[in-house]
Amino acid sequence: MKNKKESLECLFCQKKFPLDIFYPFCPECQEPLLCPIPQKKRIISPEKSSPLEKYLEFLPLSRVDPSLSLGEGNTPLIELGRLTKNFNLPPVFAKNEAANPTLSFKDRGTAVAVQKAAAMGIRKIGTVSTGNMASSTAAYGAKAGLTTLVLLKEDTPMDKLLMSGIHSPVLIKVKGDYGELFTQSFSLGKKHKIYFMNSVDPFRIEGYKITGFEIFHQLKRQVPRYLFVPVSAGGHLTGLIRAFADLNQEGLIQNYPTIVGVQARGCSPIVQAFTAGNPQVNRIKKAKTIAHAISNPDPPGGNIALKLIREHNGMLIDVSDEDILESQRMLAEIEGIFCQPASATVLAGLIRLSREIKIEKEDPVVLVITGSGLKAMESVEPSKMNVHHASLSDLERTIDSLL
Amino acid sequence: MKNKKESLECLFCQKKFPLDIFYPFCPECQEPLLCPIPQKKRIISPEKSSPLEKYLEFLPLSRVDPSLSLGEGNTPLIELGRLTKNFNLPPVFAKNEAANPTLSFKDRGTAVAVQKAAAMGIRKIGTVSTGNMASSTAAYGAKAGLTTLVLLKEDTPMDKLLMSGIHSPVLIKVKGDYGELFTQSFSLGKKHKIYFMNSVDPFRIEGYKITGFEIFHQLKRQVPRYLFVPVSAGGHLTGLIRAFADLNQEGLIQNYPTIVGVQARGCSPIVQAFTAGNPQVNRIKKAKTIAHAISNPDPPGGNIALKLIREHNGMLIDVSDEDILESQRMLAEIEGIFCQPASATVLAGLIRLSREIKIEKEDPVVLVITGSGLKAMESVEPSKMNVHHASLSDLERTIDSLL
Repeated sequence: MKNKKESLECLFCQKKFPLDIFYPFCPECQEPLLCPIPQKKRIISPEKSSPLEKYLEFLPLSRVDPSLSLGEGNTPLIELGRLTKNFNLPPVFAKNEAANPTLSFKDRGTAVAVQKAAAMGIRKIGTVSTGNMASSTAAYGAKAGLTTLVLLKEDTPMDKLLMSGIHSPVLIKVKGDYGELFTQSFSLGKKHKIYFMNSVDPFRIEGYKITGFEIFHQLKRQVPRYLFVPVSAGGHLTGLIRAFADLNQEGLIQNYPTIVGVQARGCSPIVQAFTAGNPQVNRIKKAKTIAHAISNPDPPGGNIALKLIREHNGMLIDVSDEDILESQRMLAEIEGIFCQPASATVLAGLIRLSREIKIEKEDPVVLVITGSGLKAMESVEPSKMNVHHASLSDLERTIDSLL
Repeated sequence: MKNKKESLECLFCQKKFPLDIFYPFCPECQEPLLCPIPQKKRIISPEKSSPLEKYLEFLPLSRVDPSLSLGEGNTPLIELGRLTKNFNLPPVFAKNEAANPTLSFKDRGTAVAVQKAAAMGIRKIGTVSTGNMASSTAAYGAKAGLTTLVLLKEDTPMDKLLMSGIHSPVLIKVKGDYGELFTQSFSLGKKHKIYFMNSVDPFRIEGYKITGFEIFHQLKRQVPRYLFVPVSAGGHLTGLIRAFADLNQEGLIQNYPTIVGVQARGCSPIVQAFTAGNPQVNRIKKAKTIAHAISNPDPPGGNIALKLIREHNGMLIDVSDEDILESQRMLAEIEGIFCQPASATVLAGLIRLSREIKIEKEDPVVLVITGSGLKAMESVEPSKMNVHHASLSDLERTIDSLL
């Protein structure tokens, strides 16, 4: 299903190739291909309420079918006033992507990829995932009436499986190496005309740009000084960097934010390559972190993320599980935001960075909160909850003693 | 903490009483008091993005403190095109309140009640709840830096407790009758200056109006012909009816939607009173339904809901647990929306009503989806999931056999 008019681009070979939606990788260097940046002038349609329609000219779509939407985007940007004060930080905002339909940022990308699938007449989609991606793809696949294939790791726990299973995709637990499964999904997809919209899918990545556009508008057409985002496969970070590149190209901004990608120390292959000055990301052998949603030892978009972070003077840092859990707790207790451990990395990253470099008081900082804590309840330890007990007759005494 | 300028109103005695935020009940008939409808002209501020600011003149607040917001509201209205087609229904839309910060409609009310608390200088808030209300109040209490008391039923399961516990409120499990606990909370609150923002709190109810205002705007300033909402204590239904009364008073609409309150058959005291033509709701002895979030055998706002539904020619209907679970499954599988059983009552109600009365093809129907399915994972049966197994080497064969 190649489309003569459309092409994808390799950031490394700097060549364009005809779009093959089933296999969006460079035939020469095997890196993921991206949508080329159009040379025509693009404008925003501020009167539209649907984010896909508002930023349509910035997306690789010629139109938007509203019947495929679950109401993604338009997520709140929340000032973290109490945290800012407690840590003597500049103004810090949380862009809460957990407010998306399936409670994670993945919906931004799935929404665009499913639009593309529908426009191209594709009836079968798929994904390789253990969590957020599976429920997002299954939900959008259901909405669009597509056959949706979800390939899961063999040890995916039941609660995670239920969150995508409820949408009734074809669920297959696959025994074997996860990286190989990722690769194999594309060859199977190509053969069976199943569009695998995995983590570094070029259309998915374009969807992530909208988060950057919304931040720009929510900050009253300003650019944050620092933008923190958790990094797993590299697609989300890539999309965010491309958002600000788009705004720059259209003359809407002059300066870029310093984008800070954060990984968990127990699985930080991209940070390791960045710190060591390596040209390429190497697969790490053993991943061990509480931040399951970003535990990817062999990130398919790692080299792209590394290249873009270097080109745009961004940073890549890691944080410990201990600091992640402490940040998750702080966001919940001080700011009322209950996020996944993977998402809490951004606050841990900010606290770490604010100790290492001077962040000016007037510089707004944005933390991208990628997913809801309700999707990772295993990270909350019941033993740490302080539950009191009372009967109706001694309730007053109990309250007296506690308040 | 009585405020001379402010008063609350009894719908039954038709009298006004000075505001006592700690005990908002009629001193004469004990029914919950509501905010009086101001006689001055009120206008909407469409340029504001925060719903509280946009509809400020319709709320019992003189200003909005943005630092107390978690980004509530602005939830999507999603057309259920495939369901409409499958069931030969008029255009059906889901107003997805699960997209609120703590994944339920409660945030609408909590946001307003916490604004009120802050404006009045109150430092301690509380709630009596087992689920959605607890996490909403705990999250907003945390954001505002208030001491937050959550009183729970003794048998509240650990997963529900964690969802509010993560925000670190003072958690007390109370042994004894839940109805008595509800009543006692107000006398304790009055004595200890704890503002219990429970289900029928007058300021909470005003917050629910915004959902109605948003629906009106999202339907391009039209009124739905039917509006389905799950009914538990009665506060949400009351708020929605008041929203359309406000729009009517300001001359923005002429006709009202037919509001259809839906209860689960296993706990339907308000429906029973409505059907029997009783003037008052009687407590039912035994509640048994999968729709835990609306299982309230002694609804404190039952009489108000009954009165308002009758005055506005609304309806109250019940649906079986079987139909609730089937509707939950359909919303997830056909429309990509994973909601709680309590929320699925609205689709079950629509399907029931469409068999009993003629719904015209041009009449838009809105279903209010009150909360996320992730908050009631116990309702999803793992045994009903069709999970396949494969190894990397036989994955292709497995896919072949399934697609």
